[in-house]
Amino acid sequence: MSVDGFVAGPDQDVEHPLGVGGLKLHDWTFATRTFRDIHGMSDGDTGVDGDLVSGGFSGIGATIMGRNMFGPVRGPWEDDAWTGWWGETPPFGHSVFVLTHHPRPDLEMAGGTTFHVVTAGIDAALARARHAAAGADVRIGGGAAIIREFLRAGLIDDMHVAVVPVVLGRGERIFVDLEDLPSKYRSEELVSTAMAAHIRLVRIAEPRA
Amino acid sequence: MSVDGFVAGPDQDVEHPLGVGGLKLHDWTFATRTFRDIHGMSDGDTGVDGDLVSGGFSGIGATIMGRNMFGPVRGPWEDDAWTGWWGETPPFGHSVFVLTHHPRPDLEMAGGTTFHVVTAGIDAALARARHAAAGADVRIGGGAAIIREFLRAGLIDDMHVAVVPVVLGRGERIFVDLEDLPSKYRSEELVSTAMAAHIRLVRIAEPRA
Repeated sequence: MSVDGFVAGPDQDVEHPLGVGGLKLHDWTFATRTFRDIHGMSDGDTGVDGDLVSGGFSGIGATIMGRNMFGPVRGPWEDDAWTGWWGETPPFGHSVFVLTHHPRPDLEMAGGTTFHVVTAGIDAALARARHAAAGADVRIGGGAAIIREFLRAGLIDDMHVAVVPVVLGRGERIFVDLEDLPSKYRSEELVSTAMAAHIRLVRIAEPRA
Repeated sequence: MSVDGFVAGPDQDVEHPLGVGGLKLHDWTFATRTFRDIHGMSDGDTGVDGDLVSGGFSGIGATIMGRNMFGPVRGPWEDDAWTGWWGETPPFGHSVFVLTHHPRPDLEMAGGTTFHVVTAGIDAALARARHAAAGADVRIGGGAAIIREFLRAGLIDDMHVAVVPVVLGRGERIFVDLEDLPSKYRSEELVSTAMAAHIRLVRIAEPRA
Protein backbone atom coordinates (compact mmCIF):
# COMPACT_ATOMS: atom_id res chain seq x y z
CA MET A 1 0.00 0.00 0.00
CA SER A 2 1.24 3.48 -0.84
CA VAL A 3 1.48 6.14 1.87
CA ASP A 4 -1.68 7.66 0.41
CA GLY A 5 -3.56 4.39 0.74
CA PHE A 6 -3.54 2.78 -2.70
CA VAL A 7 -2.90 -0.95 -3.23
CA ALA A 8 -2.96 -0.68 -7.03
CA GLY A 9 -2.62 2.14 -9.52
CA PRO A 10 -5.42 3.44 -11.74
CA ASP A 11 -6.21 2.45 -15.34
CA GLN A 12 -5.39 -1.25 -15.25
CA ASP A 13 -4.89 -2.77 -18.72
CA VAL A 14 -2.88 -5.54 -20.31
CA GLU A 15 0.29 -3.42 -20.10
CA HIS A 16 -0.37 -2.43 -16.48
CA PRO A 17 -1.55 -5.48 -14.49
CA LEU A 18 -1.28 -3.48 -11.25
CA GLY A 19 -2.52 -0.22 -12.72
CA VAL A 20 -0.30 2.69 -13.73
CA GLY A 21 2.49 3.01 -11.16
CA GLY A 22 1.25 -0.01 -9.18
CA LEU A 23 4.38 -2.07 -9.78
CA LYS A 24 6.30 0.29 -7.46
CA LEU A 25 4.22 -1.00 -4.57
CA HIS A 26 5.89 -4.40 -5.04
CA ASP A 27 9.52 -3.31 -5.33
CA TRP A 28 10.18 -4.63 -1.84
CA THR A 29 9.34 -8.18 -2.97
CA PHE A 30 11.49 -8.32 -6.09
CA ALA A 31 14.81 -8.61 -4.29
CA THR A 32 13.67 -11.39 -1.97
CA ARG A 33 14.88 -14.96 -2.38
CA THR A 34 11.33 -16.39 -2.52
CA PHE A 35 10.34 -14.12 -5.38
CA ARG A 36 13.54 -14.89 -7.28
CA ASP A 37 13.18 -18.65 -6.69
CA ILE A 38 9.63 -18.60 -8.07
CA HIS A 39 10.85 -16.84 -11.16
CA GLY A 40 13.81 -19.15 -11.69
CA MET A 41 16.49 -16.75 -10.51
CA SER A 42 19.12 -17.61 -7.94
CA ASP A 43 20.30 -15.70 -4.86
CA GLY A 44 18.02 -13.01 -3.45
CA ASP A 45 17.74 -11.45 -0.03
CA THR A 46 16.36 -13.15 3.03
CA GLY A 47 15.50 -11.17 6.16
CA VAL A 48 12.25 -9.47 7.11
CA ASP A 49 10.95 -8.78 3.60
CA GLY A 50 11.94 -12.25 2.42
CA ASP A 51 10.33 -13.98 5.41
CA LEU A 52 7.07 -12.17 4.75
CA VAL A 53 7.01 -13.05 1.07
CA SER A 54 7.78 -16.72 1.76
CA GLY A 55 5.27 -16.75 4.66
CA GLY A 56 2.64 -15.58 2.23
CA PHE A 57 3.16 -18.72 0.14
CA SER A 58 3.79 -21.21 2.91
CA GLY A 59 0.97 -23.56 3.91
CA ILE A 60 -1.45 -22.18 1.31
CA GLY A 61 -3.73 -24.78 -0.27
CA ALA A 62 -5.98 -22.54 -2.38
CA THR A 63 -6.19 -18.91 -3.50
CA ILE A 64 -9.19 -16.63 -4.07
CA MET A 65 -8.92 -13.57 -6.27
CA GLY A 66 -11.11 -11.03 -8.02
CA ARG A 67 -11.59 -10.77 -11.74
CA ASN A 68 -9.20 -7.81 -12.12
CA MET A 69 -6.40 -9.69 -10.40
CA PHE A 70 -6.93 -12.50 -12.90
CA GLY A 71 -6.96 -10.30 -15.96
CA PRO A 72 -7.89 -7.07 -17.75
CA VAL A 73 -10.95 -8.57 -19.49
CA ARG A 74 -14.24 -6.90 -18.47
CA GLY A 75 -17.75 -8.27 -19.00
CA PRO A 76 -18.46 -11.72 -20.46
CA TRP A 77 -15.51 -13.86 -21.63
CA GLU A 78 -15.42 -13.52 -25.42
CA ASP A 79 -13.27 -16.63 -25.76
CA ASP A 80 -10.78 -18.68 -23.71
CA ALA A 81 -7.72 -16.77 -24.89
CA TRP A 82 -6.99 -15.08 -21.55
CA THR A 83 -5.31 -17.47 -19.12
CA GLY A 84 -4.12 -15.07 -16.43
CA TRP A 85 -1.19 -12.68 -16.01
CA TRP A 86 1.27 -15.44 -15.14
CA GLY A 87 2.06 -17.25 -18.41
CA GLU A 88 1.98 -21.02 -18.97
CA THR A 89 3.04 -21.97 -15.45
CA PRO A 90 1.42 -19.75 -12.81
CA PRO A 91 3.25 -19.68 -9.46
CA PHE A 92 0.30 -20.91 -7.39
CA GLY A 93 0.51 -24.69 -7.79
CA HIS A 94 -3.00 -25.15 -6.40
CA SER A 95 -6.65 -24.31 -7.12
CA VAL A 96 -7.34 -20.62 -7.68
CA PHE A 97 -10.93 -19.39 -7.43
CA VAL A 98 -11.67 -16.29 -9.53
CA LEU A 99 -14.72 -14.25 -8.48
CA THR A 100 -16.61 -12.82 -11.45
CA HIS A 101 -20.18 -12.51 -12.69
CA HIS A 102 -19.39 -14.33 -15.93
CA PRO A 103 -19.08 -18.15 -16.03
CA ARG A 104 -16.28 -19.89 -17.86
CA PRO A 105 -14.92 -23.46 -17.88
CA ASP A 106 -12.13 -24.45 -15.49
CA LEU A 107 -8.67 -23.72 -16.81
CA GLU A 108 -5.98 -26.26 -15.99
CA MET A 109 -2.46 -24.85 -16.28
CA ALA A 110 1.01 -26.35 -16.00
CA GLY A 111 2.58 -26.65 -12.57
CA GLY A 112 -0.53 -27.70 -10.64
CA THR A 113 -2.56 -24.49 -10.92
CA THR A 114 -6.22 -24.70 -11.97
CA PHE A 115 -8.33 -21.55 -12.31
CA HIS A 116 -11.97 -22.01 -11.33
CA VAL A 117 -14.40 -19.19 -12.09
CA VAL A 118 -16.92 -18.64 -9.27
CA THR A 119 -20.05 -16.60 -9.98
CA ALA A 120 -21.91 -17.25 -6.70
CA GLY A 121 -20.08 -14.75 -4.45
CA ILE A 122 -17.52 -14.79 -1.65
CA ASP A 123 -19.15 -17.40 0.58
CA ALA A 124 -19.33 -19.90 -2.26
CA ALA A 125 -15.76 -19.14 -3.26
CA LEU A 126 -14.55 -19.62 0.31
CA ALA A 127 -16.43 -22.91 0.70
CA ARG A 128 -14.92 -24.28 -2.50
CA ALA A 129 -11.45 -22.97 -1.62
CA ARG A 130 -11.58 -24.49 1.86
CA HIS A 131 -12.55 -27.83 0.37
CA ALA A 132 -9.76 -27.64 -2.19
CA ALA A 133 -7.22 -26.60 0.45
CA ALA A 134 -8.02 -29.72 2.48
CA GLY A 135 -6.94 -28.25 5.81
CA ALA A 136 -4.24 -25.92 4.50
CA ASP A 137 -4.77 -22.14 4.50
CA VAL A 138 -6.76 -20.18 1.94
CA ARG A 139 -5.14 -16.99 0.71
CA ILE A 140 -7.22 -14.02 -0.46
CA GLY A 141 -4.90 -12.71 -3.13
CA GLY A 142 -6.73 -9.50 -4.06
CA GLY A 143 -7.55 -7.07 -5.49
CA ALA A 144 -8.75 -4.28 -3.28
CA ALA A 145 -12.50 -4.79 -3.76
CA ILE A 146 -12.37 -8.52 -2.93
CA ILE A 147 -10.21 -8.01 0.15
CA ARG A 148 -12.57 -5.29 1.38
CA GLU A 149 -15.57 -7.58 0.86
CA PHE A 150 -13.93 -10.39 2.85
CA LEU A 151 -12.79 -7.97 5.60
CA ARG A 152 -16.28 -6.52 5.89
CA ALA A 153 -17.67 -10.04 6.32
CA GLY A 154 -15.00 -10.82 8.95
CA LEU A 155 -13.84 -13.78 6.85
CA ILE A 156 -10.13 -12.97 6.95
CA ASP A 157 -8.21 -14.34 9.96
CA ASP A 158 -4.88 -12.72 9.34
CA MET A 159 -3.86 -9.96 6.95
CA HIS A 160 -0.47 -8.60 5.97
CA VAL A 161 -0.29 -4.92 4.97
CA ALA A 162 2.99 -3.68 3.50
CA VAL A 163 3.21 0.12 3.51
CA VAL A 164 5.82 1.44 1.08
CA PRO A 165 7.36 4.93 0.74
CA VAL A 166 5.53 5.76 -2.49
CA VAL A 167 2.71 8.18 -3.35
CA LEU A 168 0.35 7.19 -6.16
CA GLY A 169 -2.36 9.87 -6.10
CA ARG A 170 -4.95 7.62 -7.73
CA GLY A 171 -5.83 3.94 -7.76
CA GLU A 172 -7.56 1.25 -5.75
CA ARG A 173 -8.02 1.48 -1.98
CA ILE A 174 -8.80 -1.30 0.49
CA PHE A 175 -9.52 0.84 3.54
CA VAL A 176 -12.72 2.70 2.65
CA ASP A 177 -16.20 2.09 4.04
CA LEU A 178 -14.84 -0.21 6.73
CA GLU A 179 -16.16 1.70 9.74
CA ASP A 180 -16.46 -1.32 12.02
CA LEU A 181 -12.96 -2.62 11.25
CA PRO A 182 -11.72 -1.84 14.82
CA SER A 183 -14.45 -4.06 16.28
CA LYS A 184 -13.28 -6.98 14.14
CA TYR A 185 -9.52 -6.51 13.75
CA ARG A 186 -6.56 -5.43 15.80
CA SER A 187 -3.32 -4.31 14.31
CA GLU A 188 0.00 -5.61 15.52
CA GLU A 189 3.59 -6.54 14.76
CA LEU A 190 5.02 -3.53 13.02
CA VAL A 191 8.30 -4.63 11.47
CA SER A 192 10.10 -2.73 8.78
CA THR A 193 12.97 -2.54 6.37
CA ALA A 194 14.02 0.51 4.36
CA MET A 195 11.66 -0.68 1.59
CA ALA A 196 8.44 -1.55 3.43
CA ALA A 197 6.74 -1.31 6.81
CA HIS A 198 4.84 -4.52 7.52
CA ILE A 199 1.73 -4.46 9.69
CA ARG A 200 -0.41 -7.46 10.52
CA LEU A 201 -4.18 -7.26 11.09
CA VAL A 202 -5.59 -10.11 13.15
CA ARG A 203 -9.27 -10.84 13.62
CA ILE A 204 -10.52 -10.38 17.19
CA ALA A 205 -14.20 -11.21 16.76
CA GLU A 206 -15.59 -14.57 15.78
CA PRO A 207 -16.38 -15.09 12.11
CA ARG A 208 -20.05 -14.87 11.25
CA ALA A 209 -21.86 -18.20 11.52
CA MET B 1 -1.76 7.90 10.70
CA SER B 2 -3.60 4.63 11.28
CA VAL B 3 -3.16 1.73 8.85
CA ASP B 4 -6.58 2.57 7.45
CA GLY B 5 -5.53 6.16 6.76
CA PHE B 6 -6.92 8.25 9.63
CA VAL B 7 -4.90 11.01 11.31
CA ALA B 8 -7.58 11.74 13.92
CA GLY B 9 -10.57 9.87 15.24
CA PRO B 10 -14.21 10.88 14.69
CA ASP B 11 -16.46 12.96 16.97
CA GLN B 12 -13.95 15.47 18.33
CA ASP B 13 -15.14 17.23 21.49
CA VAL B 14 -13.66 18.73 24.64
CA GLU B 15 -13.01 15.24 26.06
CA HIS B 16 -11.50 13.95 22.81
CA PRO B 17 -9.15 16.58 21.33
CA LEU B 18 -7.95 14.07 18.71
CA GLY B 19 -11.35 12.47 18.18
CA VAL B 20 -12.46 9.16 19.64
CA GLY B 21 -9.50 6.78 19.56
CA GLY B 22 -7.19 9.40 18.07
CA LEU B 23 -4.84 9.48 21.04
CA LYS B 24 -3.60 5.99 20.10
CA LEU B 25 -2.07 7.49 16.97
CA HIS B 26 0.34 9.41 19.21
CA ASP B 27 1.43 6.61 21.54
CA TRP B 28 4.81 6.47 19.81
CA THR B 29 5.55 10.07 20.90
CA PHE B 30 4.69 9.74 24.58
CA ALA B 31 7.75 7.72 25.53
CA THR B 32 10.20 10.04 23.80
CA ARG B 33 12.52 12.34 25.72
CA THR B 34 11.36 15.46 23.84
CA PHE B 35 7.73 14.86 24.70
CA ARG B 36 8.57 14.17 28.33
CA ASP B 37 10.81 17.25 28.58
CA ILE B 38 8.03 19.48 27.22
CA HIS B 39 5.66 18.13 29.81
CA GLY B 40 8.13 18.51 32.68
CA MET B 41 8.97 14.83 33.02
CA SER B 42 12.50 13.47 33.12
CA ASP B 43 14.07 10.56 31.24
CA GLY B 44 12.38 9.31 28.10
CA ASP B 45 13.64 7.40 25.09
CA THR B 46 15.87 8.79 22.41
CA GLY B 47 16.42 6.96 19.12
CA VAL B 48 14.42 7.10 15.91
CA ASP B 49 11.06 8.10 17.41
CA GLY B 50 12.69 10.63 19.73
CA ASP B 51 14.77 12.18 16.95
CA LEU B 52 11.66 12.68 14.84
CA VAL B 53 9.69 14.29 17.65
CA SER B 54 12.53 16.65 18.54
CA GLY B 55 13.18 17.35 14.84
CA GLY B 56 9.57 18.44 14.55
CA PHE B 57 10.18 21.17 17.14
CA SER B 58 13.68 22.17 16.16
CA GLY B 59 14.17 25.39 14.19
CA ILE B 60 10.45 26.20 14.12
CA GLY B 61 9.63 29.92 14.38
CA ALA B 62 5.87 29.83 13.85
CA THR B 63 3.03 27.30 13.63
CA ILE B 64 -0.13 27.25 11.52
CA MET B 65 -3.12 25.16 12.53
CA GLY B 66 -6.78 24.74 11.74
CA ARG B 67 -9.63 25.69 14.02
CA ASN B 68 -10.26 22.08 15.14
CA MET B 69 -6.67 21.65 16.22
CA PHE B 70 -7.05 24.78 18.33
CA GLY B 71 -10.29 23.75 19.97
CA PRO B 72 -13.72 22.12 19.86
CA VAL B 73 -15.62 25.40 19.44
CA ARG B 74 -17.56 25.62 16.15
CA GLY B 75 -18.97 28.75 14.53
CA PRO B 76 -18.44 32.27 15.95
CA TRP B 77 -16.52 32.64 19.24
CA GLU B 78 -19.18 33.20 21.93
CA ASP B 79 -16.57 34.61 24.31
CA ASP B 80 -12.83 34.43 24.98
CA ALA B 81 -13.06 31.48 27.38
CA TRP B 82 -11.40 28.93 25.09
CA THR B 83 -7.61 29.36 25.03
CA GLY B 84 -6.53 26.15 23.30
CA TRP B 85 -6.04 22.53 24.37
CA TRP B 86 -2.68 23.18 26.02
CA GLY B 87 -3.43 24.98 29.32
CA GLU B 88 -1.79 28.20 30.58
CA THR B 89 1.59 27.54 28.98
CA PRO B 90 1.28 26.02 25.51
CA PRO B 91 4.40 24.15 24.30
CA PHE B 92 4.91 26.27 21.16
CA GLY B 93 6.82 29.28 22.50
CA HIS B 94 6.17 31.25 19.31
CA SER B 95 3.36 32.75 17.21
CA VAL B 96 0.61 30.29 16.28
CA PHE B 97 -1.75 31.21 13.44
CA VAL B 98 -5.20 29.64 13.71
CA LEU B 99 -7.21 29.42 10.46
CA THR B 100 -10.92 30.01 10.99
CA HIS B 101 -13.76 31.99 9.45
CA HIS B 102 -14.49 33.80 12.72
CA PRO B 103 -12.33 36.72 13.91
CA ARG B 104 -11.12 37.02 17.47
CA PRO B 105 -8.48 39.15 19.23
CA ASP B 106 -4.92 37.84 19.61
CA LEU B 107 -4.40 35.68 22.65
CA GLU B 108 -1.09 36.06 24.45
CA MET B 109 -0.23 33.07 26.63
CA ALA B 110 2.56 32.28 29.08
CA GLY B 111 5.81 30.86 27.72
CA GLY B 112 6.02 32.97 24.57
CA THR B 113 3.04 31.55 22.66
CA THR B 114 0.58 33.98 21.05
CA PHE B 115 -2.46 32.68 19.16
CA HIS B 116 -3.44 34.81 16.17
CA VAL B 117 -6.72 34.06 14.44
CA VAL B 118 -6.46 34.33 10.63
CA THR B 119 -9.66 34.59 8.58
CA ALA B 120 -8.10 35.34 5.17
CA GLY B 121 -7.03 31.79 4.18
CA ILE B 122 -3.84 29.77 3.88
CA ASP B 123 -1.79 32.21 1.84
CA ALA B 124 -2.40 35.00 4.35
CA ALA B 125 -1.61 32.66 7.24
CA LEU B 126 1.62 31.54 5.59
CA ALA B 127 2.71 35.13 4.85
CA ARG B 128 2.11 36.14 8.46
CA ALA B 129 3.77 33.00 9.82
CA ARG B 130 6.84 33.46 7.60
CA HIS B 131 7.16 37.03 8.82
CA ALA B 132 6.82 35.96 12.44
CA ALA B 133 9.31 33.11 11.99
CA ALA B 134 11.93 35.57 10.74
CA GLY B 135 13.87 33.01 8.74
CA ALA B 136 13.13 29.97 10.89
CA ASP B 137 10.82 27.23 9.62
CA VAL B 138 7.03 27.37 9.69
CA ARG B 139 5.31 24.20 10.87
CA ILE B 140 1.85 23.23 9.62
CA GLY B 141 0.56 21.52 12.74
CA GLY B 142 -2.75 20.16 11.42
CA GLY B 143 -5.42 19.00 11.33
CA ALA B 144 -6.13 16.91 8.29
CA ALA B 145 -8.09 19.49 6.29
CA ILE B 146 -5.45 22.21 6.67
CA ILE B 147 -2.58 19.90 5.77
CA ARG B 148 -4.49 18.71 2.70
CA GLU B 149 -5.12 22.30 1.66
CA PHE B 150 -1.42 23.19 1.98
CA LEU B 151 -0.36 19.98 0.17
CA ARG B 152 -2.74 20.67 -2.69
CA ALA B 153 -1.25 24.16 -3.05
CA GLY B 154 2.28 22.70 -2.99
CA LEU B 155 3.11 24.92 0.00
CA ILE B 156 4.65 22.21 2.17
CA ASP B 157 8.37 21.56 1.62
CA ASP B 158 8.80 18.58 3.85
CA MET B 159 6.24 16.37 5.58
CA HIS B 160 6.60 13.66 8.18
CA VAL B 161 4.03 10.83 8.13
CA ALA B 162 4.09 8.38 11.04
CA VAL B 163 2.12 5.21 10.26
CA VAL B 164 1.13 3.30 13.40
CA PRO B 165 -0.20 -0.25 13.83
CA VAL B 166 -3.73 0.85 14.73
CA VAL B 167 -7.07 0.65 12.90
CA LEU B 168 -9.59 3.41 13.58
CA GLY B 169 -12.43 2.72 11.12
CA ARG B 170 -13.60 6.34 11.13
CA GLY B 171 -12.06 9.76 11.46
CA GLU B 172 -10.17 12.39 9.50
CA ARG B 173 -8.03 11.57 6.46
CA ILE B 174 -5.30 13.66 4.85
CA PHE B 175 -4.82 11.60 1.68
CA VAL B 176 -8.08 12.07 -0.23
CA ASP B 177 -8.63 14.14 -3.37
CA LEU B 178 -4.90 14.60 -3.83
CA GLU B 179 -4.65 13.07 -7.30
CA ASP B 180 -1.66 15.11 -8.41
CA LEU B 181 0.37 14.45 -5.26
CA PRO B 182 2.94 12.30 -7.16
CA SER B 183 3.70 15.22 -9.48
CA LYS B 184 4.49 17.43 -6.48
CA TYR B 185 5.93 15.10 -3.84
CA ARG B 186 8.22 12.12 -3.63
CA SER B 187 8.29 9.79 -0.69
CA GLU B 188 11.51 8.71 0.93
CA GLU B 189 13.36 7.67 4.05
CA LEU B 190 11.31 4.90 5.53
CA VAL B 191 12.60 4.34 9.05
CA SER B 192 10.71 2.48 11.70
CA THR B 193 10.50 1.32 15.27
CA ALA B 194 8.05 -1.22 16.68
CA MET B 195 5.66 1.70 17.38
CA ALA B 196 5.67 3.71 14.17
CA ALA B 197 6.90 3.65 10.57
CA HIS B 198 8.14 7.09 9.57
CA ILE B 199 7.94 8.23 5.96
CA ARG B 200 9.01 11.62 4.67
CA LEU B 201 7.35 13.39 1.76
CA VAL B 202 9.52 15.98 0.04
CA ARG B 203 8.33 18.47 -2.54
CA ILE B 204 9.78 17.93 -6.02
CA ALA B 205 8.04 20.72 -7.93
CA GLU B 206 8.52 24.41 -7.30
CA PRO B 207 5.96 26.13 -5.08
CA ARG B 208 3.40 28.18 -6.92
CA ALA B 209 4.49 31.76 -7.57
